[in-house]
This record gives sequence, C-alpha cells and structure tokens, in this order.
Amino acid sequence: MSYDIGKNFTVRISGTSHGANVSCEIIGIPEGTVIDVSKVKKFLLRRAPGRSSLTSLRREPDDPVFESGLRDGVSDGGALKIVIPNSDARSSDYEKLKDTPRPSHADYTAWVKYKGSMDMAGGGPFSGRMTAPLCAAGAVALQMLESKGIYIGAHLLSVGDQHDEKYPLFPDRELLERSAAKEIPALSEDAEMRFRETIRKAMEDGDSVGGIVECAVTGMPAGIGGPMFGGMEGAISYAVFGIPGVKGIDFGSGFDAAGMRGSECNDPFTAECGWITTSTNNSGGIQGGITNGMPVVFRTAFKPTPSISLPQRTVSLSRMEDEILTIEGRHDPCIAVRAVPVVEAAAAIAVLDMMMEESDQYDSQ
Amino acid sequence: MSYDIGKNFTVRISGTSHGANVSCEIIGIPEGTVIDVSKVKKFLLRRAPGRSSLTSLRREPDDPVFESGLRDGVSDGGALKIVIPNSDARSSDYEKLKDTPRPSHADYTAWVKYKGSMDMAGGGPFSGRMTAPLCAAGAVALQMLESKGIYIGAHLLSVGDQHDEKYPLFPDRELLERSAAKEIPALSEDAEMRFRETIRKAMEDGDSVGGIVECAVTGMPAGIGGPMFGGMEGAISYAVFGIPGVKGIDFGSGFDAAGMRGSECNDPFTAECGWITTSTNNSGGIQGGITNGMPVVFRTAFKPTPSISLPQRTVSLSRMEDEILTIEGRHDPCIAVRAVPVVEAAAAIAVLDMMMEESDQYDSQ
Amino acid sequence: MSYDIGKNFTVRISGTSHGANVSCEIIGIPEGTVIDVSKVKKFLLRRAPGRSSLTSLRREPDDPVFESGLRDGVSDGGALKIVIPNSDARSSDYEKLKDTPRPSHADYTAWVKYKGSMDMAGGGPFSGRMTAPLCAAGAVALQMLESKGIYIGAHLLSVGDQHDEKYPLFPDRELLERSAAKEIPALSEDAEMRFRETIRKAMEDGDSVGGIVECAVTGMPAGIGGPMFGGMEGAISYAVFGIPGVKGIDFGSGFDAAGMRGSECNDPFTAECGWITTSTNNSGGIQGGITNGMPVVFRTAFKPTPSISLPQRTVSLSRMEDEILTIEGRHDPCIAVRAVPVVEAAAAIAVLDMMMEESDQYDSQ
Amino acid sequence: MSYDIGKNFTVRISGTSHGANVSCEIIGIPEGTVIDVSKVKKFLLRRAPGRSSLTSLRREPDDPVFESGLRDGVSDGGALKIVIPNSDARSSDYEKLKDTPRPSHADYTAWVKYKGSMDMAGGGPFSGRMTAPLCAAGAVALQMLESKGIYIGAHLLSVGDQHDEKYPLFPDRELLERSAAKEIPALSEDAEMRFRETIRKAMEDGDSVGGIVECAVTGMPAGIGGPMFGGMEGAISYAVFGIPGVKGIDFGSGFDAAGMRGSECNDPFTAECGWITTSTNNSGGIQGGITNGMPVVFRTAFKPTPSISLPQRTVSLSRMEDEILTIEGRHDPCIAVRAVPVVEAAAAIAVLDMMMEESDQYDSQ
Repeated sequence: MSYDIGKNFTVRISGTSHGANVSCEIIGIPEGTVIDVSKVKKFLLRRAPGRSSLTSLRREPDDPVFESGLRDGVSDGGALKIVIPNSDARSSDYEKLKDTPRPSHADYTAWVKYKGSMDMAGGGPFSGRMTAPLCAAGAVALQMLESKGIYIGAHLLSVGDQHDEKYPLFPDRELLERSAAKEIPALSEDAEMRFRETIRKAMEDGDSVGGIVECAVTGMPAGIGGPMFGGMEGAISYAVFGIPGVKGIDFGSGFDAAGMRGSECNDPFTAECGWITTSTNNSGGIQGGITNGMPVVFRTAFKPTPSISLPQRTVSLSRMEDEILTIEGRHDPCIAVRAVPVVEAAAAIAVLDMMMEESDQYDSQ
Repeated sequence: MSYDIGKNFTVRISGTSHGANVSCEIIGIPEGTVIDVSKVKKFLLRRAPGRSSLTSLRREPDDPVFESGLRDGVSDGGALKIVIPNSDARSSDYEKLKDTPRPSHADYTAWVKYKGSMDMAGGGPFSGRMTAPLCAAGAVALQMLESKGIYIGAHLLSVGDQHDEKYPLFPDRELLERSAAKEIPALSEDAEMRFRETIRKAMEDGDSVGGIVECAVTGMPAGIGGPMFGGMEGAISYAVFGIPGVKGIDFGSGFDAAGMRGSECNDPFTAECGWITTSTNNSGGIQGGITNGMPVVFRTAFKPTPSISLPQRTVSLSRMEDEILTIEGRHDPCIAVRAVPVVEAAAAIAVLDMMMEESDQYDSQ
Repeated sequence: MSYDIGKNFTVRISGTSHGANVSCEIIGIPEGTVIDVSKVKKFLLRRAPGRSSLTSLRREPDDPVFESGLRDGVSDGGALKIVIPNSDARSSDYEKLKDTPRPSHADYTAWVKYKGSMDMAGGGPFSGRMTAPLCAAGAVALQMLESKGIYIGAHLLSVGDQHDEKYPLFPDRELLERSAAKEIPALSEDAEMRFRETIRKAMEDGDSVGGIVECAVTGMPAGIGGPMFGGMEGAISYAVFGIPGVKGIDFGSGFDAAGMRGSECNDPFTAECGWITTSTNNSGGIQGGITNGMPVVFRTAFKPTPSISLPQRTVSLSRMEDEILTIEGRHDPCIAVRAVPVVEAAAAIAVLDMMMEESDQYDSQ
Repeated sequence: MSYDIGKNFTVRISGTSHGANVSCEIIGIPEGTVIDVSKVKKFLLRRAPGRSSLTSLRREPDDPVFESGLRDGVSDGGALKIVIPNSDARSSDYEKLKDTPRPSHADYTAWVKYKGSMDMAGGGPFSGRMTAPLCAAGAVALQMLESKGIYIGAHLLSVGDQHDEKYPLFPDRELLERSAAKEIPALSEDAEMRFRETIRKAMEDGDSVGGIVECAVTGMPAGIGGPMFGGMEGAISYAVFGIPGVKGIDFGSGFDAAGMRGSECNDPFTAECGWITTSTNNSGGIQGGITNGMPVVFRTAFKPTPSISLPQRTVSLSRMEDEILTIEGRHDPCIAVRAVPVVEAAAAIAVLDMMMEESDQYDSQ
C-alpha cells in the first residue's frame, strides 16, 4: 500500500473521503522557492465538482490550508503540508453498498483485501476525492517547472466515440492552457459541443461514458530520465495509474506505433541553428527512457464511471447469491472531464521528480 | 537512474551489452525455496537470439551461472545472483554511430545525459541484452508463483496490421504455454503465418515492424494491490516500461474502455458455488488497483525496431549538420517477437513482489 | 531530509513546534489490529512536560486525535493518522535568537542549511516537541509487540555523575514497567533520589545536565535482523539518533566490550529444556545483526540540554562578531528524563519493523 | 535483509566469503568523475589480511577488477562495478561448526534465521570478507570527497585497556593519514607499541581483544544533514553498524557528554575572519543532525574477535546438549586493527551520500 510518490520531490497523500480532510505533504522543495498560493487554489477549482451541470453535484469548496513549510509565500525548506477540509459530509448512502459491491468499483476488492475492516463510505481511500490533494501537490510542481520554462497542459481527446484533434508537434503555451478555462476541456469548440452532447445523453440514460486525456509537457531539456527502471515513461505511468479510473497509457504514437514500420515510426533528427529536434514525434519526446528535448506527449484512457443508475447485476456477499443493484446519488457521468487537471498534476509531479534527480539540470539557475 | 525493481522480491540488473557479462541479483527469496535451474535455462532460450531466421543473427548461448544464493537447488536465504556471460563480443560497428545518432534510438539522449561519457557499444545499458538477466529473474519469479497456482503467459496479439485473437475469459494453462514453443509466439496458427509473412516482408524491405503483446496472469487471489500508488496497474506498468521499445500499456479493455458506456464496461459480479467471479473482464482483473480474482490481462505496445537498413535522416553531432545514416549489421526486424517472454518476466516480478507485500497471502502455505 | 522511518511499519512525523499541531501517520498496520487508544494517551503523558517541578513548565495536554485508520478501536488497514494539537502557542522569545544562535543548538546549522528560510520558533522541526508524535507511533508499536509477547522498557541509567544499576540478565515485565510511573524514571529509589538532587542542583545553577537511558526488549524471538546493513543494531541506532540530543548508542557491553578479551566477552551458549540461551549477554541479544533470543539491551547517551540560563559565548550572524547570549524561558534541565519513553518508542518502531520483515514470524498467530 | 546503503551514492555489496568473488556496485557517480584505480587498490591493501604477524594469515591479494562504469579512468555515468576475486578458497573447517555454533558469532542466529539453509562456510554473508568490497566503494567515495576538500582519517584509539590520544580540535591531513601506513594504526608511537604488546599477549593466550576506532571528517561544509531521521549521526551510525563486530558508536563527547553539565558541554561559537567555528567540539561537528563546519568526529567500539582458540561452552544443535568447542584456524586477534580503513570507508559512503542530497553543495564546482 502506498500513498507516496517521488524520490526527490516526494508527495504523500493522506485522509479519506469521509474524514475531516484530505491532504498532501511534500518533502524536497528547496528553501527559498516562491509558491503562489492563489495559483494552487485556482488549479484546484479546475478539478472541483459542481462546476458544471455535467459533473457531480457534490459541493466541495476545496479551499486549501497551507499548514506548514511556507513563510510569506516562500518555502522554508521543511515539509510543505496542504490540507483540504471535507465539507460535504459522509453520506449514509454507502451503508447499503456494504453487502452488494458495485460492479467495477473497488467495493469488492477492498472488502477482500481489508477483510471488511475498511470504511468505504464515500469510496474510502479509493475515492476520486484523493485526487484533490494530488492536484494541490501537482499545482506546486507545475509552478516549480514553469520557473524552468517547462509547461504542462492536457485536454479531453475523446469522449465515448467522439474525438478531438491531437496537439500539434509543438503546442504553445496558449494551446496548453486553452482547455483549462472550459467547462468541458476539449481543444476545439466543435469537439467540446460533441463531447457535451455525448455526456448529456449518457446522463439521461442513467449511464456513464469513458474518455481519453492527452497531455503534453513542453520545454523539457534533453537528457532527463535513464535506462531500464529509471525511464521517464515508467515514472509518468506509475504516477498516472495512481489516478482512479485509469486503464491505459501510451507515449507518442503508442499503440499506433505497434502497427507501423520503422521507416515510418522513427523520428528523423534535424539540426537547425544549433538546436537538434526531430521532424516527427512518434517517440513522444522520449528515447531509451530519456527525454530528447521534444515535447513529452502521452494519452491516458479513463473507463466510464462505474457508478451508474441503471440496475446492475452484483452479488450479496453475506448470502453469496446474485442480486440486482441500483445505485442512487448523483455521480460524474464522465470522470475523464474532471480528470484533465489531475493528469497534468500527476505528470508534473513525475517530471519534476525526474528533473531533480539530475541536480545539475534543476539547480542550474 | 535505476536498475532495481521490487520492494519485497527485489531485482537488480547489472552489466552492459559489451562488458564481460550481464547479471541479476535477487534479494528476498525465502530460504528453502526450491528453484529449478533447468527451467530458468529453458526460459532464457525463449528470449535468446538466433532461434529463427526472423530474429537477430547475434549468437548468445545465454547460459546462466548461479553464483550465489543457491545450495543444491534450494535458496539459502541470501542474495541469488545469476550471471550470463557475453560471448558475442563488442562490435566495432558502433564507433561510427557516435557522431550520427540513430533515429528513435537512445544514442542521442544518452549522449546528452552522460555528456558523451557512456560507452554505447552494443547499446550500452539501453541494449535489449539487459532483458536477458531480467528474464532470468522473471523465470525464478514464475516458478515461485507457480508453486502458489499462479500462471503467466503472453503471446503476440499483433504484428504491424495483422492481428491474432485475444485470450478467452479464462485461459487455461495449456493456452498460456502454447506460444512458448513457437518460433513466432502467436496463439493461432493462422496468425503465426500472417505474422511471419509481415515480418519477412519488412526484412526484405530493409525495414522493421511493431507489435502488441498480450499477457495474462491466472490463479491470482483477490485482494492483492492497493489504492493510489500501491495499485497493481502501476506496479506492472512500471516493470513493463523497463523493457526497451515499449510505448504503451493497457489493462482489460484499456483504451477501448474509453469508448464504452458504463453499462457496457462494468463487469457484473456473479456468485457460483461460493466463488465470486465477473461475467466479463473489462477490468482486466483489477478494480481500485486491487486484484478481483479474475485473470489479470494487459497489452503492451512495442514500437518497430529503430535499427533499420534503409537510409535515414539524422545529424552529425560534431558538425551540427543534417546527415544521411545507413545502419549496418543484422537486427531483429520485430522486437515484439523476442519480447514475449520478457513481458512475462516483467509481469512475474511485479506480481510476485505485490503478493509478498501481503504476507498472509504469500506465506499461507 | 527525512521524517520517515520503517519499511514495513512506516512512520511519518509531521508538523512543527509552533504550527497548529504535530502528527504521525503510520502505514502498514494489518487490518483488524486492535489498538487501545487509552494506552496511547497514557503513554504520551509519560513524555508530556509539566509533570514534575524538574521538567519544562510548558503545558501541553498532548491529547491525541485519531484522524483516520481506526474504526471502533480496530485498524481498517489504511493509514493511521494521529494528530496532537499544539496548545502552548508560539513564543516571541525566539525572535531574538535569530541573530545569535544558541550554542550546541540547531539554530546555526539550520540557518546555514535553510539559508535563513526556516522558522525556528520553538525549535522548528528540531524541537523536542516532534518526539510527541514519535511517542504516539511508538505506543501503537508497543501494543502490537505486546500482542506477540514482546515487552520494551527503559530507565535512566545515569544523570551527570550519578549512576543506577543496570537491568539484570532477564528483566521481567514488572521491572520494565517500574520506571514508567516515576517522576524521575530510575530503577532504584536510591538512584531516583540522587538523580533528583543532581538535576535540582543544575537547575539552581542555571545549568543543565546529561544522562544515559538504558533500554531492554524482552521476548524477542531469535532470527530477526540480518547481515550488513540489514542488522538490528543499525535499525535501532537509526531510529534512536532521530531523537534530539542523542550523541551515542551501544549494545550489550558496547564500549566496555572494547576493553575486554574474547574469553570474557563471548556469551557461552547453554541448552536447557530445549531452549537455547546464553549465560551472559555481552552481545545485547544480537549476533551478526540478528537477534539470538536473549533480551536486546542498549544504552543511549543524551547530552545536557543546550538551553541554559547562564551567559554563553556566541556570535552575531549579521555582524560576524562574538556576543554574549543569555537564554530566557524555562527549559528541561535534563532532557534524558522525559526521553525515557521516547527511547522506548523509537526502539518499538525499529523492532516491530524488523519483525514484520520476517513475515512468518509476525503473522504466525 | 539489506546489502544496500545510500540514496544518492548507492552501494550494493554482493558475494560471500566462500564464493568466487565479493563485489560492490555503485550507482550515482556523476559521469565524468575521475577515479584513480591505483588509489582504490592501495586503500584495499590497508584492510587486506596477511600484512602483519598480528593479523590473520589468510592470504588474499584483494586485487579489484573494475568491471563496468569506467572508461579510461573516468566514470561513464552508469553503475560502477568492482569485483574482488576470492583466492583463498573454502575451508572444510567450517563443516564441524554447523552443529556447534561459535559463541558470540553469527552461526546460531543465522541457523535460526535461515532455518539451516545458509552456507556459513567462511562466515557466509557475515564474514569480515564483505568489508573488502565495502572498502572498495569507500575508496571511491573518499576520492570524490577529497576533490571537494573533505578528508577522512581514523586510528586505533584503544586496544583492550590501553589508550592512545584523541585527535586534536583540528586534525590536519598529515595526521589523518598518519595511521594509514602503520601496521598497528595508532597515532602515537608509544601507543602503537603498547597496542602491539596487548594484542601479542592475547594471541599467546589463545585469546582476542577489543578496541575502539576514532574517525574524523575534516573540511565538511556546514549545513549538511537534517532534523530527525535525516540526521548525520543516524546516517553514519547506520553505515558503521554494517561492519561486523561493531557494538557502539558515539559522536563528539558522546557518552562522556552524558556526565557533563550544559555549561561545560556546549560549544561556544566564535567568529574569526568571517568564519564561524566553535572553540570546543563536544558536538562532534553535528548539531540538530546537521554539520556545523567543525570536524565530524566519532568513536566506534569493536568487540574482541569471537573466534578464539581457548575451549568455550556452546551447545550441540542436533542433540540440544551443552558442549565444549575448540575453534581451530588462525584468526585476527583484534578485529579493530584491520577495521580502521573500514570505518573510514563506511564514513565516506555515508558522508558523500548526505553531501549529494544537498545538490547545491555537491555540484557547486
């Protein structure tokens, strides 16, 4: 069991959905680092529920308290602790779920693992609420990366059977930030409309729908990462699979690369004005586990929200008999929507941690 | 930089392609564990080059030496060290590559990261040869898992644009082992023929081709893994991205799940004879990061071999000018072929490590 | 920088002396473990200030709040979080110390390390207050060890030039608990009186005094630990040096053993009723880093409290000139007194973590 | 079980006394670091047996082979592997020890821990031979520290009841190196003579004798280390307890500090020419776990060699009866003698690892 990530910029996530708060604690921020608290708050709002009629109605102000590690907006070199109080308290809805686990949810597996001891109210430690402190830590990492000229953005690439365009070879900062302001964080307006319609329809049907998030990291210096288990893909994927609902990840052309020939997939190098780039980016900015200076690009697949209001087949754990379950309450019909900033946060944490491994890169002010 | 994996069953990979040997050292094998050395040797042969006219002609006997940790085939409780001597010695071919990095290879990124210090002969630490000791460690893990009734198998699901069938809902042991004996490790004979043809054609064209490997773990008890960064997907993906050439991974329906609705993707529970299963396995045997007792199923995308004999565009690092590079030597036209046992090995290491985290599961006789 | 300890029973200490609270978070408690909250509270009282006229007058109720991980006194398998609010708030006394670091305190070294960013009010992360959550975690570990028949006790072995008797070869539980109830935790009443007098005199002189704490762990099974960096001494010493003020540790005869001959220092084995013991315990229960079943016994040296009211020579950091400093406020004249339960806590955490490494030992109900 | 140490400069020790070799692998040496192989060889000779009539007669040339990580004397940025072949092969002497464990040796505890599986020939993983690769890694660390102006030396402070003088407040480089060239590494010639006599007498009696090693690290910048478990004392003690035979460690005045008053023990700061020092060094150069720029000074207590030729009381494990054991073979009568460079090596590894944690200190060329 691990709520920790990172070796140099280490993040610990704590709390549960139904407890007093959720929090993150970051160890490894150099003393003297300026952290803009208002930017952290703003970033959290992108993930917060209740922003749209197409997301959960649960109302959480998600107002972070900086408990330690910061003096007048500057890191003191100690652990940075950010606490996010839970205001929308424990629902009694979960009592009835104890005996009839929700399909494709963690109810059953947690019941086996913890032998029934774990309080799964609100999803317990499996709750999407745990991504709020992950976003707080990510918002700090994003600021630290920005001070090095590294920018991270993500957008909804698909919802159900509807697709948006991919990022271009060199997405600029404006493009990376474009989706942030949107209720449905697509790149194109056309896709936004189609995504909205797809989600609305799933909602009307008491159903849910999956989606893919594309994420890009620009401004990465070449030379970050390493061979084998020290690779950039491994670090990012480990962080991203920490987000509930993720079922797949690929880098650059990813699964499409498996259908290509080498002559098509290899990224030709080219030298321009003393700068080495590649004219395509099927590698997703990573070769041999190490960044090559091109944007790091990856896609993350989110499954549809498992909580739907349609009747579903499950079992009674006490009677070991098949049952029909109808879940009440209002859930996000598409978790991929609010997951967009969470993917950015996970990427930022993994990338910053790798940057700090190369001390000469990170310190070279 | 990390050549280590695992917390309980910890594996360290050492050596380089052009040195005297490559090796693995495993710490965490309980004393008294029986290890069949001949099974490890047999497993290594599945990965070894020179088996087929469709793989690299480099000849490596890959004969492992068990240097410490084993007495009369039984673990002594100390570190298990397996050394695989390199016989096919250092090629001078690599000298010319120093100035003109091969596209989509680690030449350029290693040059930046190690500031030119790293000896990249034979690929250095990025070489596919590092997967030989990974397979040795994996072969040990596979045996330890088998003693608990857990079996792992993998097969080529696709090569280029050709596809094979997926594993059924409950693959039996015979099916898991079927591909092992084949030169081209497909499931169906029909696919094997088509894969062979696709690879042969790429070879003839001086080109290469990518592929997808599907892997299944059966017999897994429910309850292994954990929330957030302690999840099974994160552990397996971290191990799998340690294999050179991997660009993507997904679990269960994975990227397809992103296109589904919840009512279609959720796996209904059903109770039969006191045994809880699901009637579909879109979750790939994992819910909330924890195994649910169904087979753990995942796909891994391999890019085409970057070393091709067709002329390619690259740069001269010394002159910072564009160049045309023609790579000589004979390389695997499709790394996915020999990667099949490597994926099994990586999965075995990750799964066993997670099993041992739950001491009550692993020790329970 | 590390506030973490343990691999299997992992403890994170958070907070600072002048913040809202201090806390510990424990990951690795098996679900279903019964934890007696009242015992944790009682243990914390042993460390709390204000118990005696011979310790600090700072008043901290040290009333722990169990924030997560516990349901009706039973571990839920998740992270156990214990928060101890700070009530005796930030003193303005510390402002003047900024420029004139207290001799043998962390003021100067923290100023260098954190480049002046760290808020050292109340000692910041170096404060003895950080041992309150360490004791909370230790109190949990002690309970878990007791359920396996393992008991830990400690006592003041010396204060200044006054000495008490050592534990006998096999201290029983009553003896281990004897010092717990005392204001000055000596074994013999005679020593308690002499220690009290020594401390009182140092206080009267505006001075402080050092001391040695002896700690014993009984009921340890043989076979816990390992060679080299996996040894029991290394684990305990690492934990114990995490306590502020510790300057030395030795096991069994320790430094005295360096003056002995082998024939005198070796512990002869003897077999009685199918039980192997040694007739002396110069090894302190550890041979080759592994427990031998005898009590694990070690001594910890505490320096005198660096904060004294006598005038001292220091420097002005701004003017780089020598200065005379007089520290106000009331401090413990002998930190070793309140450190006795802290040593027990550190030992318990280290020992339990090592026990859990040997899963067959810990699980074997 | 752990053969690993370090987070940034990580060292893994491998092999056993009776196997083909012992080795170390270092990960974390920056590419381009110059490593003088002859200096490593010379350092190993200080530890090697057979140098004196007062140490073991076992003959080991201890000639290290640099297997990977080095090109023309310069680190390539990969893992540095140093292999030391074992030439003085497995003795059959050890067979008889299987049933009658040597008192105060690891025979019994290893038998319990590994349930009889571990081959204890030559001491197995508990052998003093494991300190040969530790010295190899330490010799590399020493060179890296020297390039930053940091020097480490150690000497025999006592043997049995005979004592040498301590290092002065500021030992210079000549003094730190003085003991290195001596057969009996004392500081003063007088002590060397008395130590020699004490050891010779113990030998004649078929007995052994303990000793204390004092070690100093000079040139340390202030600000290295951290509070709680990130402290310098904890790091050094963890490394030092990895050396077989160590039973105690203390820093600065250590155990003596426990007998002092604060006014006597506190180290007064003084500013001279813009440089802050202390006029005494009871802190051993460490305050609050962080270096203060004064020499880091610590003492390590070694017990007498447990293998002595006098008859000793032990048990027969098979018959569970008391037995008399007489150990044959020739052993070091005082392990502290050859341990002097081993303590330097352990200190170098711990200190360098902590230095590298503060990247701005280590990189600031």
